[in-house]
Amino acid sequence: MTTQYLTEQIQAKKSFLCIGLDVDLNKIPQHLLQLQDPIFEFNKAIIDATHDLCVSYKPNTAFYEAYGIKGWQSLQKTIQYINKKYPEIFTIADAKRGDIGNTSSMYAKAFFDDLNFDSVTVAPYMGKDSVEPFLAFESKHTIMLALTSNEGAFDFQTKEANGKELYKHVLETSKAWKNSENLMYVVGATKAEYFAEIRKIVPDSFLLVPGIGAQGGNLQDVCKYGMNDSVGLLINSSRGIIYASNQEDFAQKAREEAKKLQQEMKEILNN
Amino acid sequence: MTTQYLTEQIQAKKSFLCIGLDVDLNKIPQHLLQLQDPIFEFNKAIIDATHDLCVSYKPNTAFYEAYGIKGWQSLQKTIQYINKKYPEIFTIADAKRGDIGNTSSMYAKAFFDDLNFDSVTVAPYMGKDSVEPFLAFESKHTIMLALTSNEGAFDFQTKEANGKELYKHVLETSKAWKNSENLMYVVGATKAEYFAEIRKIVPDSFLLVPGIGAQGGNLQDVCKYGMNDSVGLLINSSRGIIYASNQEDFAQKAREEAKKLQQEMKEILNN
Repeated sequence: MTTQYLTEQIQAKKSFLCIGLDVDLNKIPQHLLQLQDPIFEFNKAIIDATHDLCVSYKPNTAFYEAYGIKGWQSLQKTIQYINKKYPEIFTIADAKRGDIGNTSSMYAKAFFDDLNFDSVTVAPYMGKDSVEPFLAFESKHTIMLALTSNEGAFDFQTKEANGKELYKHVLETSKAWKNSENLMYVVGATKAEYFAEIRKIVPDSFLLVPGIGAQGGNLQDVCKYGMNDSVGLLINSSRGIIYASNQEDFAQKAREEAKKLQQEMKEILNN
Repeated sequence: MTTQYLTEQIQAKKSFLCIGLDVDLNKIPQHLLQLQDPIFEFNKAIIDATHDLCVSYKPNTAFYEAYGIKGWQSLQKTIQYINKKYPEIFTIADAKRGDIGNTSSMYAKAFFDDLNFDSVTVAPYMGKDSVEPFLAFESKHTIMLALTSNEGAFDFQTKEANGKELYKHVLETSKAWKNSENLMYVVGATKAEYFAEIRKIVPDSFLLVPGIGAQGGNLQDVCKYGMNDSVGLLINSSRGIIYASNQEDFAQKAREEAKKLQQEMKEILNN
């Protein structure tokens, strides 16, 4: 999927919402647990109830790996379901991978070829040759961690080297990598004041923004400093939407929460 | 497994070799491809042929994920085989994971509970709260990237902040994390001249050292600067051992390559 198509979808749906499918069996409605694949059934219901309000779904691979082979099967069924029924959706494997070159190639194969995601998140610590194998997939996107939404972001990401924080070095350095036009970046909503600085370095790139809702980030602030002419933002919400209810009405309640965010986004896009 | 037991195994076997099980179907003997699970059959043969010469096996998860559910099954069968038949072996899931707290907990569950590895590799970029959920498993070990063996290591890991390279900040900062006694670190053999500096910061920790062989690192140099009183080193070799032959004799040839390294290690330990 091209970023141009993604922007068109955002304008058509008046939404730049990404819904995080981080499914924890302890938090989903109990009646689903009797089914053969509770994780997939939960996702299917959430997706059917929200697909017109969002432009992206983002399963975090940890929540699937934690259930072993069964979990991996649920992930595969989920991505296949989205790709078949809602091909207009931009899919993100939130996997935060990264390894030496030949190994990163295998991860890229796993998420782009085998599972057929549109994008995957990666970690920058191992540098250029750990990320370029993902970028080599030219119809796909690689979303690299820059400034994350958690407290530990201040341990290393904001360390200053030559008068500039590490995350800025990450952004700048990556622009010179091969096929860097396929890069997007993770920037946490909890650090809204940083968006203006980030936009000076990567004015045109899409930013995937976690941390709205459960983690305390504010949508208005993020848009004020982070939005560009093509919108350039995917705002993720996971727990605030998918766990809005743990009763039979969970999908309807998820829709209501997604709708609230979408309405807020619509207003921002119209102004 | 305790590090004391690991050191005892090293002394008993006169080996601190770790064999990387990075299985690529394009590189294994063709006759295995007719079998129901070629990856597992390959691993089983390699393990049976080398278990007395090494103290650790390290499957890199990328090579299993690339084959989807079948790959994940091969990984599960491999770790179950090692745990059952050779429980004295220290197992490493080379996964390089790391995410916000609740997500890292799910990864820790996947590798420590579900698959029952002794340790897992993690990336430091997201800081303390992305690693502590792994450290909370007190009978397990968390092996954090410090200075990797690839070229991209010089992109960010060696950037100086306050007169000190990032990887040194990573080492120092992590020592203050909760349950930091469960930490080990990845330090590439290709950077042997750095080991003396690293030992000033983490004199007692085990270091997992990739980069011997295919990547050009030198065993003697690493030992000279990196070894401590409890040995404190696990030297990984993957391709140099497991792909020594792609014929019917592959396991025997792998043993011969492992034996060469083990003999070199024996000599070092005896001096």
